[in-house]
Amino acid sequence: MKKIAVIVAGGSGRRMGNAVPKQFLLLKGKPVLWYTLDSFLRSYSDMQIILVLPDEYAAHGKEIAAMLNAAERITAIPGGNTRFHSVQKGLQSVKDDAVIFVHDGVRCMVSVPLIQRCYTQALEKGSAIPAVAATDSIRIINGVYHHVEDRQQVRIVQTPQTFLSSIILPAFTQEYDEAFTDEATVVEAYGTAVFLTEGEYDNIKITRPVDMVIAEKIIEDRSALEQS
Amino acid sequence: MKKIAVIVAGGSGRRMGNAVPKQFLLLKGKPVLWYTLDSFLRSYSDMQIILVLPDEYAAHGKEIAAMLNAAERITAIPGGNTRFHSVQKGLQSVKDDAVIFVHDGVRCMVSVPLIQRCYTQALEKGSAIPAVAATDSIRIINGVYHHVEDRQQVRIVQTPQTFLSSIILPAFTQEYDEAFTDEATVVEAYGTAVFLTEGEYDNIKITRPVDMVIAEKIIEDRSALEQS
Repeated sequence: MKKIAVIVAGGSGRRMGNAVPKQFLLLKGKPVLWYTLDSFLRSYSDMQIILVLPDEYAAHGKEIAAMLNAAERITAIPGGNTRFHSVQKGLQSVKDDAVIFVHDGVRCMVSVPLIQRCYTQALEKGSAIPAVAATDSIRIINGVYHHVEDRQQVRIVQTPQTFLSSIILPAFTQEYDEAFTDEATVVEAYGTAVFLTEGEYDNIKITRPVDMVIAEKIIEDRSALEQS
Repeated sequence: MKKIAVIVAGGSGRRMGNAVPKQFLLLKGKPVLWYTLDSFLRSYSDMQIILVLPDEYAAHGKEIAAMLNAAERITAIPGGNTRFHSVQKGLQSVKDDAVIFVHDGVRCMVSVPLIQRCYTQALEKGSAIPAVAATDSIRIINGVYHHVEDRQQVRIVQTPQTFLSSIILPAFTQEYDEAFTDEATVVEAYGTAVFLTEGEYDNIKITRPVDMVIAEKIIEDRSALEQS
């Protein structure tokens, strides 16, 4: 089936205290977004990418696509006011049946096996939401009370959130709701159950400066593994 | 009131794939445990430390105490089979009223302000369990079903878990139960509610190799802050 990744890189990156949005910060000399796009391009030779970028960074996006020799596989479009609206815009050009991956541009350590696992599960079950078990003790607060939650039951949700187009497209015709924190919640609000799949601890999201250091370490470990 | 920290550093560190347990790995030339002890020693001049160590590392513990010029403030004792039993042993020597901090030896980035905040709240409310809000989307699994949990309601629990001795000592006379995942759960099982306090995102636990890299980055940032 067709494979389309909607990669959301619309953030202005003010949280990092940088002039440059975090998706364009350099990791070992290459932009964060380069790594994200590279994994999707490598996962399937017929993967097409819709890249949602802030208006003023369209040229940056083109440059990265050129670095990857993938200008014809990447379509850059401007973002919306919220993540929901950005994804909605990204989905507008999808006409045929496809498996749709919605991914955070700043989750740059996403691996090819994870993308492929999501694809296979979406074909089988309609969706694949990668998530990892919590490694810390977790409490859930309810007013002034709180209780311990069995950490085996707690899942930390990641992306690519992956769906058959027949499931995600109708869900994104809904009115926007603040409770839409990710694509899985949009699909559930439309009345369709979603299915989790095993995520990866290395599939981190670059939000704080320390995440750049972690990503560099992951890149070093992967390249050491390849050379050994 | 008296201040006693029970610092649990009984792990053999096999998870890191190192011959050296993680509490003795070097961070910028000093053992992980050095940083932990240093913060507790600096927090209050009358802080006493009970250091729970694997038997075969008693000499290492003494060396670190000597590096810190704090041999008379640190008592090393051998650990038990579980964390519960290690803490129980550590508490045996507590006779007078005190505020007791139970802390993971490998949470080496614990800050002096956090320790002091825990002390003050334990005096006021009887306990202080540091915890931070989740930064990721969280789902709670219940069989095959799962639901989104409002991330504002999800707290990731840290240490030092801090209690009045009149609260923690009786709780540790209970029979061991596998559900005792930390000291807060022991105290709750004894029938006493515990109180959370704001933790710190930098108060990480060294469990994976990447955590050493994160800790180094935190040390660098703190030293840059001191020099500015």
